[in-house]
Amino acid sequence: MPEITIKDIAKQCGVGVSTVSRAINNHPDINQETKNMIMEVIKSTGFVPNNSARNLKRIDAKSIAVLVKGITNPLFSDMIKVIEEETQKKKYSLVLKHVEYYEDEVDVALELVKEKRLRGIIFLGGYFFHSEEKIANLTVPYIFSTIGMAMSENINRALYSSVAVDDRKESHGMTSYLMGLGHKAIAILSAESESNSIGQLRLEGYKDALLEAGIPFDEKLVRQVEDDIEHYSMENGYRTMKKLIESGEKFTAVYATADMLAVGACRALLEAGMRIPQDVSVAGYDGIDVGKYYNPAITTIKQPVREMAETTIKLLFDIIAGRKSYEHIVFPAKLVVRESTGPAE
Amino acid sequence: MPEITIKDIAKQCGVGVSTVSRAINNHPDINQETKNMIMEVIKSTGFVPNNSARNLKRIDAKSIAVLVKGITNPLFSDMIKVIEEETQKKKYSLVLKHVEYYEDEVDVALELVKEKRLRGIIFLGGYFFHSEEKIANLTVPYIFSTIGMAMSENINRALYSSVAVDDRKESHGMTSYLMGLGHKAIAILSAESESNSIGQLRLEGYKDALLEAGIPFDEKLVRQVEDDIEHYSMENGYRTMKKLIESGEKFTAVYATADMLAVGACRALLEAGMRIPQDVSVAGYDGIDVGKYYNPAITTIKQPVREMAETTIKLLFDIIAGRKSYEHIVFPAKLVVRESTGPAE
Repeated sequence: MPEITIKDIAKQCGVGVSTVSRAINNHPDINQETKNMIMEVIKSTGFVPNNSARNLKRIDAKSIAVLVKGITNPLFSDMIKVIEEETQKKKYSLVLKHVEYYEDEVDVALELVKEKRLRGIIFLGGYFFHSEEKIANLTVPYIFSTIGMAMSENINRALYSSVAVDDRKESHGMTSYLMGLGHKAIAILSAESESNSIGQLRLEGYKDALLEAGIPFDEKLVRQVEDDIEHYSMENGYRTMKKLIESGEKFTAVYATADMLAVGACRALLEAGMRIPQDVSVAGYDGIDVGKYYNPAITTIKQPVREMAETTIKLLFDIIAGRKSYEHIVFPAKLVVRESTGPAE
Repeated sequence: MPEITIKDIAKQCGVGVSTVSRAINNHPDINQETKNMIMEVIKSTGFVPNNSARNLKRIDAKSIAVLVKGITNPLFSDMIKVIEEETQKKKYSLVLKHVEYYEDEVDVALELVKEKRLRGIIFLGGYFFHSEEKIANLTVPYIFSTIGMAMSENINRALYSSVAVDDRKESHGMTSYLMGLGHKAIAILSAESESNSIGQLRLEGYKDALLEAGIPFDEKLVRQVEDDIEHYSMENGYRTMKKLIESGEKFTAVYATADMLAVGACRALLEAGMRIPQDVSVAGYDGIDVGKYYNPAITTIKQPVREMAETTIKLLFDIIAGRKSYEHIVFPAKLVVRESTGPAE
C-alpha cells in the first residue's frame, strides 16, 4: 500500500491541506464539524498525522545533499521540490546547500560528506572543471543534474553520473528557428565565459547554427552580461540589452540564453520604444514561469524540469543501492513558440 | 583589518571573480600571465585562498538555521543571501531548510535543535499559531522575520523576537492610494485564509481603508487563490484573475496581495483584451524584481528586504551573545508607483 499523505487526506475530505493541518494541530480557527469530519477520515485511512513522531525518525535517517549554484534560479526551485518529495518518500532527509558561483562545489561537497549520514549528492547548476584526483575524494555517489554536458572532456565518464539536456544542440535549434523567421542579425546575451559552462555551450550552439546557414559570425553581436551583479538575473538582462541598444549595433532578433535575461532584455527594448516582435524578436531559454506570463509571452527552450528531477533522484537511489554504477542521461528539450518572436521585417 | 575576500582580489586585478577562482584552482583555461598577476596580488594582500582549509574550520563551527516557508518566493532568496553573508562573517555555518506550507515549522525546528551545534533559528515566511507551551520547547534563540505581525496575540511577546513590516498598515496605504486615483470597485486577490496570516493582515488593511473612506466592503470582490497549486505563484494569480473576469463582476482596479500574483493577474487581463492601467489598474505587494521589469511595470509595496535581513541576523547574534533578550522591530515599507496604476475612468 502506498503511503498516505496529508494531501490525500485533504483530497478525500474536499478541503485544503492547511485545513487538515489545522485539524491535526488543534488550531482554534477551524469549524468543529469540519474538524470532526477530517479526523474521521484520518482514522479510517490509517494516516499517522503525528509530525513530531515522523520527524524524530527523520533526524536519525540517512540524508542526501543538493548543492545549488545560483539559488535564485526558479528552475532549480522547481527541481528541488521534486527531489525533496522523492527523498522524503525514501525516508531520507535532504540537506540543501547554496554554493556561491565563485565557490568550489567539490570542496563544499567534501565538507558535507564528513557528516556521517550523507549517502549521496546532487549538484545543481554551475560548471565543472575539477581534476579526476579531486573528484576521486568524493566517496559517496553523486550526480550532476542540468550540467551533464558542461563537463571537462578529459574526465573519465565512469567517475560520475549526469542528467541534463544538450545545451549546445538545443541552442542550435533555437538559433535555426530564428533564422527560419528570416533573422540574420541575431544578437546573443551570454551569461558565462568559462569554457565548458552552460553559457558557453549555448553560445557554441548559436555559432554552429550560423555556420550551418552560412551566416558570418559577428563578435559584436555577442554580449557578455555584467560581472558585478548576479549573472542570470533580470537586471543583468536589462543592463546588457540597454548597452547593446546604445551601441547602435543593428540586429532584428535577440537570443537571451536564459529567460531571466530575456525578461530584462524585453523591458530595455520596450523602454527604448521598440516593439516586440514587430521591431525585434526576443527568445529565451529554460521555460520558467515568468516567460509564460510576461507581456509579450516569451519564446523559449523548455527544459523538462520535473522529468529531469525525477530521473536524477531515481538514478541516485539506484546508485546508492548498488543497482547501477553510473549513467549519463540526456533529455530532449522543447522549443515553445510564444508571442515574442516573429518574422524579420 | 577587514577580511579580504575573493571579490576584493578580483576588483584589484580588474578581472572577474571566476577568473580569480580559476587561478587559485589551477584551472587550465586561464592565461598564464593573468594567473601570475592574480597570484602576485593574492600574495601581496595576504588573502588566504585555500577553500578546503576554510571549510574544514567551518564544519566544526556553530551553526544557525533558516526555516523557509515557500522557497520559490524571490523575496526570500534575497534575504537568505544577506543572512548567509553575515553568518559566514561570524564564522557560523548556515543550515537552510525548506518547510512545506502545511508542515509545522516548530516541529521542524525542534528536530533541528537536536543537532548539537545549532545556536539560533530564523523563521522566514509562514504564519504562526502555536501555543506558548509548544514554543517553550525551543531552547535556542529564534526570530520570526517578515512575519512579526502575523502572530497570535495571546502569545507572550517576551518569548520571541520579530522583524517585519506592518502588513495591515501598508496594505491600508496601498488601498488608500488606489482610492485616491478615484477607484471605488477594487478587487483584491488574497492568498491565505488563515487568521493572523500575512494574507489576512493585508486583507484587513484593505478593509480598514474602505471603511475609512466610507466605501462599502463587497465580499464578491475578494478572491481567494486556488488551494491546489502554490498559493503565491504567477499561475495562481492568472487563474484567480481569469475566474474573476469570467464572473462578470465589475471593478476598475485589482490589488494583488503579492507581486507574483499581480504578474499572473496582468497576463489574464491583457489576454481578455483589457488595457493596464487605462481599463484596469493593477497593484502588487513585495517589491520583487519581476514587477520592475514587467510590461507594464507594476506598482507595489516595496519591503526593505536587505535592511530586514541585516537587522534579523544582527539581532539573532545579539541574542545568542546575551546582549539582548528579545526585540520586536517593525520596518516601514515604501509605496512604489509604476506604470500599472492610473486614474479611474
